[in-house]
Amino acid sequence: MEKKDFLKEPVKHIDIKSFDTIDIIESMKDMSFTARDTARASEILNIMINDTECTIIMCIAGSTSAAGCMQIYVDMVRHNMVDVIVASGAAIVDMDFLEALGFKHYKGRASADDKQLRELYIDRIYDTYIDEEQLQICDNTIKEIADALSPGVYSSREFIKEMGKYLVDNAKKKDSLVQTAFENNVPIFCPAFSDSSAGFGLVKHQHEKPDNHVSIDSVKDFRELTEIKMRSPISGLFIIGGGVPKNFAQDTVICAEVLGHDVPMHKYAVQITVADARDGACSGSTLKEASSWGKVDTGFEQMVYAEASSVLPLIISYVYHKKDWEKRSKRDWSKIFE
Amino acid sequence: MEKKDFLKEPVKHIDIKSFDTIDIIESMKDMSFTARDTARASEILNIMINDTECTIIMCIAGSTSAAGCMQIYVDMVRHNMVDVIVASGAAIVDMDFLEALGFKHYKGRASADDKQLRELYIDRIYDTYIDEEQLQICDNTIKEIADALSPGVYSSREFIKEMGKYLVDNAKKKDSLVQTAFENNVPIFCPAFSDSSAGFGLVKHQHEKPDNHVSIDSVKDFRELTEIKMRSPISGLFIIGGGVPKNFAQDTVICAEVLGHDVPMHKYAVQITVADARDGACSGSTLKEASSWGKVDTGFEQMVYAEASSVLPLIISYVYHKKDWEKRSKRDWSKIFE
Amino acid sequence: MEKKDFLKEPVKHIDIKSFDTIDIIESMKDMSFTARDTARASEILNIMINDTECTIIMCIAGSTSAAGCMQIYVDMVRHNMVDVIVASGAAIVDMDFLEALGFKHYKGRASADDKQLRELYIDRIYDTYIDEEQLQICDNTIKEIADALSPGVYSSREFIKEMGKYLVDNAKKKDSLVQTAFENNVPIFCPAFSDSSAGFGLVKHQHEKPDNHVSIDSVKDFRELTEIKMRSPISGLFIIGGGVPKNFAQDTVICAEVLGHDVPMHKYAVQITVADARDGACSGSTLKEASSWGKVDTGFEQMVYAEASSVLPLIISYVYHKKDWEKRSKRDWSKIFE
Amino acid sequence: MEKKDFLKEPVKHIDIKSFDTIDIIESMKDMSFTARDTARASEILNIMINDTECTIIMCIAGSTSAAGCMQIYVDMVRHNMVDVIVASGAAIVDMDFLEALGFKHYKGRASADDKQLRELYIDRIYDTYIDEEQLQICDNTIKEIADALSPGVYSSREFIKEMGKYLVDNAKKKDSLVQTAFENNVPIFCPAFSDSSAGFGLVKHQHEKPDNHVSIDSVKDFRELTEIKMRSPISGLFIIGGGVPKNFAQDTVICAEVLGHDVPMHKYAVQITVADARDGACSGSTLKEASSWGKVDTGFEQMVYAEASSVLPLIISYVYHKKDWEKRSKRDWSKIFE
Repeated sequence: MEKKDFLKEPVKHIDIKSFDTIDIIESMKDMSFTARDTARASEILNIMINDTECTIIMCIAGSTSAAGCMQIYVDMVRHNMVDVIVASGAAIVDMDFLEALGFKHYKGRASADDKQLRELYIDRIYDTYIDEEQLQICDNTIKEIADALSPGVYSSREFIKEMGKYLVDNAKKKDSLVQTAFENNVPIFCPAFSDSSAGFGLVKHQHEKPDNHVSIDSVKDFRELTEIKMRSPISGLFIIGGGVPKNFAQDTVICAEVLGHDVPMHKYAVQITVADARDGACSGSTLKEASSWGKVDTGFEQMVYAEASSVLPLIISYVYHKKDWEKRSKRDWSKIFE
Repeated sequence: MEKKDFLKEPVKHIDIKSFDTIDIIESMKDMSFTARDTARASEILNIMINDTECTIIMCIAGSTSAAGCMQIYVDMVRHNMVDVIVASGAAIVDMDFLEALGFKHYKGRASADDKQLRELYIDRIYDTYIDEEQLQICDNTIKEIADALSPGVYSSREFIKEMGKYLVDNAKKKDSLVQTAFENNVPIFCPAFSDSSAGFGLVKHQHEKPDNHVSIDSVKDFRELTEIKMRSPISGLFIIGGGVPKNFAQDTVICAEVLGHDVPMHKYAVQITVADARDGACSGSTLKEASSWGKVDTGFEQMVYAEASSVLPLIISYVYHKKDWEKRSKRDWSKIFE
Repeated sequence: MEKKDFLKEPVKHIDIKSFDTIDIIESMKDMSFTARDTARASEILNIMINDTECTIIMCIAGSTSAAGCMQIYVDMVRHNMVDVIVASGAAIVDMDFLEALGFKHYKGRASADDKQLRELYIDRIYDTYIDEEQLQICDNTIKEIADALSPGVYSSREFIKEMGKYLVDNAKKKDSLVQTAFENNVPIFCPAFSDSSAGFGLVKHQHEKPDNHVSIDSVKDFRELTEIKMRSPISGLFIIGGGVPKNFAQDTVICAEVLGHDVPMHKYAVQITVADARDGACSGSTLKEASSWGKVDTGFEQMVYAEASSVLPLIISYVYHKKDWEKRSKRDWSKIFE
Repeated sequence: MEKKDFLKEPVKHIDIKSFDTIDIIESMKDMSFTARDTARASEILNIMINDTECTIIMCIAGSTSAAGCMQIYVDMVRHNMVDVIVASGAAIVDMDFLEALGFKHYKGRASADDKQLRELYIDRIYDTYIDEEQLQICDNTIKEIADALSPGVYSSREFIKEMGKYLVDNAKKKDSLVQTAFENNVPIFCPAFSDSSAGFGLVKHQHEKPDNHVSIDSVKDFRELTEIKMRSPISGLFIIGGGVPKNFAQDTVICAEVLGHDVPMHKYAVQITVADARDGACSGSTLKEASSWGKVDTGFEQMVYAEASSVLPLIISYVYHKKDWEKRSKRDWSKIFE
């Protein structure tokens, strides 16, 4: 078998506009277990959207973008359901930016022979494949963007904005999250930016320019995200996965305090995860636990214990077809940094 | 707070006929992770339905019936998607038969104060409540049915058939699974029948009639279910949860062999579960693992790692709206035991 | 590769007497997460042992016996740490009785090629193998035992007692749980007895003797187990896995009530499981949830979320070396049924 | 209840030198499931230690340090079992550095009333408590350290080295990981350093010195860690949890390639986690999956699916008492950056 035999069926990203889940979600409200939790999460997101003072921060960790949810995030930005994004570097660079450059994810098998994949330069994410040679082009594009910037210290947000600009001229696929967020003034933060394809490109950039290069300072990210939190009368979190993005966004409440500002906890919070609270790790720690830290309020919080690809399309299609986002004004948070 | 304050909002069972998930499931086919697994499970169930020789055995463990999926199972029987049911006693007696008697499940909270619930005679299943006094009426009704039968050894199937008959005359809610299965000649087996509300009623019955009473012999169940397997050219399993029902239905292949009949493995198998393969327990053991035992074939098998209330409505609504069941003939397996 | 190449390395059952975990467990008391839960579970089992009025009921589901824990259960019976056993049929027949007949479990691989195993008649339990031809000898031995009994209705306890008797004369491995429990008057109940290798033997037995055979009535089991509960001033549960055995033992409190006896809840309860509470299934339902049903008291209960093979040796070695069981009197519950 | 009533019982870190688990681990080798995986993980770590060319990189995510495993990591450094540490900021700053300053973690309850904890300024990690006022002192100490440094761009490693220096003079508890690693020339990397208590201190530092301050560039971390990988003939990973530290360390193989060096994959890898592979997230992705990316070799890799506090003491006590580390030479990787 050759590489092309493995990379035959591209993952197609689900279009939540093409079906309407309002009836399903309304029915699930009167069920129990994960069905009811999913319905409650849908409602809370819609409540956030109807709260005219609320800034909605979406946190993305994990590989949902590779798994067919990429267009959902684009639609959320385009239809004004989200104002700020905090994500893992992989979600933004290895997955979204990669597809913007014209490449694809492919349907694979979780039980694949990894040795064979290795020989063919195919990378596996559970049951999904990526062409490693395409990923290297992605690394190099990051390097080119870095090379073209003035040397200095950047937040990941600033760098990702440059990636958005780059795509305006160079994207093969126009509908990426990086570009759409750029065009809609939705800032994207990657607090662990170097832990991704971006890291490879930036290491190469710094290696070639040891004395005069771009650095990525996530302290600056933290200051900027906290600035948004401080300027938002109310805030809500919509969390896919967990990890660093979740914690980083939650911590802005404390960070504002550290800077001497008394800000309210995040009023709304939804988290979709399969992680478990019992090992005390960040991804699984409950939103209730976060309330002991003063990060998240408990009136409108919902954990949904599910793999996101199965419930996220239901939740966002519901909110999309409710159309409450139509009357919502744009927050344009990117503009405060200009 | 009084009991009635806790038992205010009944669980309403989702009606998968009232919305159409074909577009969602078709989209999920091209995604990854649980979304794709869910789509594949939907397809396989539909393939089973189109296989004119296939007997479809549905296995139910866990509390999905309490959680709002009860009507799904009824619709599956009514619309000829399932020919045999193997279930936990609780799913059939404590949940379905209880509601047939006019009682309800109620929306509750997983973080409830269990001491307070105890004092009010409210039983909790995760985030769902039951009125224990109503459950006692259920126990007693089982006892009455047993008292009215000729003493002797029964399979659970035979006893549940009597419960179906009872409901024809006495049901408060006409649309129960026990009654619908009875009316459609779909046999129901509960291999651990006494491990349920039925157990309480039957113990009381035997206690009052120590020498001359009804006994429930699950070996008889095993013989009967194996009889169905032996008479079916092809068979498929649709498994919700795991536990004894899953194992019992899988084992009919081996049991037929033991009786000297060479029957094919179950050709199709779908399992929806959150259980984990790593502890070697029955619920989590994969369908691939079952193939090493010669129980399940591997061409059409799919594990869906999800809490069933969130994905089952999608799967069954898809199959329902595909309408392939319309041309399927009834198997009437109950009739072979008459 | 031939069969013997796969069945080379037998699983050896851990001997908790050969090392002393008191220091580890004492250290774990002052840690957090699963370590502290494990220590607390160890303490509670030891408290049960020191409670002179307490009957200790051990519930076993899952495949820990195949995975190297078989000798632990034997040692618990031999050293008076357990008075009653409620187990899955597989744990008692397919695993323990199988080894008593001289057969073994073998170390395998979870990622094995199941098709190849199938061809070689090797059955797989996660990373453990069984020789299917040996399992068939086990089935047939059950049939022989049934053939030798007077026809009639038996509880599983009565039948398993006969298996114990059989082993006294015929065991190849003397140290089985079935035989040790028989010799120590510790009754064993399998509420879903036919869902195991025993089921195959008994079906064959009934098939050959359609009119005059042994039946297994788990209602009788329920009456007998409830009888023990009613005669015990105090009771405690030590649960490995979950499933039917857990629920069955918990339900004796309610069953006693149904029979008009006001008995206390199980005062102590420990459960070791990897199952999750969120799907409302029996295995994962918490002991706190069971307290809403009036089954388990909340003063001394502990869930340990771990795969049992990793923590059970620590817990039982601790209790063994504490030696408090030395002054405990035998309960001899089997004798009340003679 | 007052704060002091909640913060009464400090977590005590387990001392794996005080008991010997060699017999337990040797027994577990012949069991199955998690027991055998734990034994195999122990063996692989010991093989790494005996490989004279191997650099051992330990990755720590999650809250095991708060949960009683903190001294384990110190003992590993002190006894030459680990050469490089890649960790979450929380593990290093919020937990280890916090205790170095004289503060404690406390035993709490997972079912605590988080509202009450909030009012008392107690932060909860599952069943463990922290005094938030002490954490603020930790934040401020970080700020002081930053204030005392020359402005410029630092890797987290460089900054953490300064924390180690600070502790040499100021530590209340001498035996911290930060100080011990500093004294043993074991570099510590936190690729998401600002996502921790350090982030608060550094934001305050930058806020007060907007034009002339310390920045933390994780690209620099990536270059440095890759440098170590390139200079190591062989490397092995010992991973607790998953998240960014795991991915970051794995990625050094690719990063070396990007820099034009052909380095071998990590030859050894052990991961202890409760995360699940099925959602495609980093923490749960298997080491086999990593081999498709060319990051980890498959000859000596072992996933252990367990909450680390329960198995890590067994594994490290085994390796400690094997004493093979006694003949191992120190790698002193910190020195290459001087």
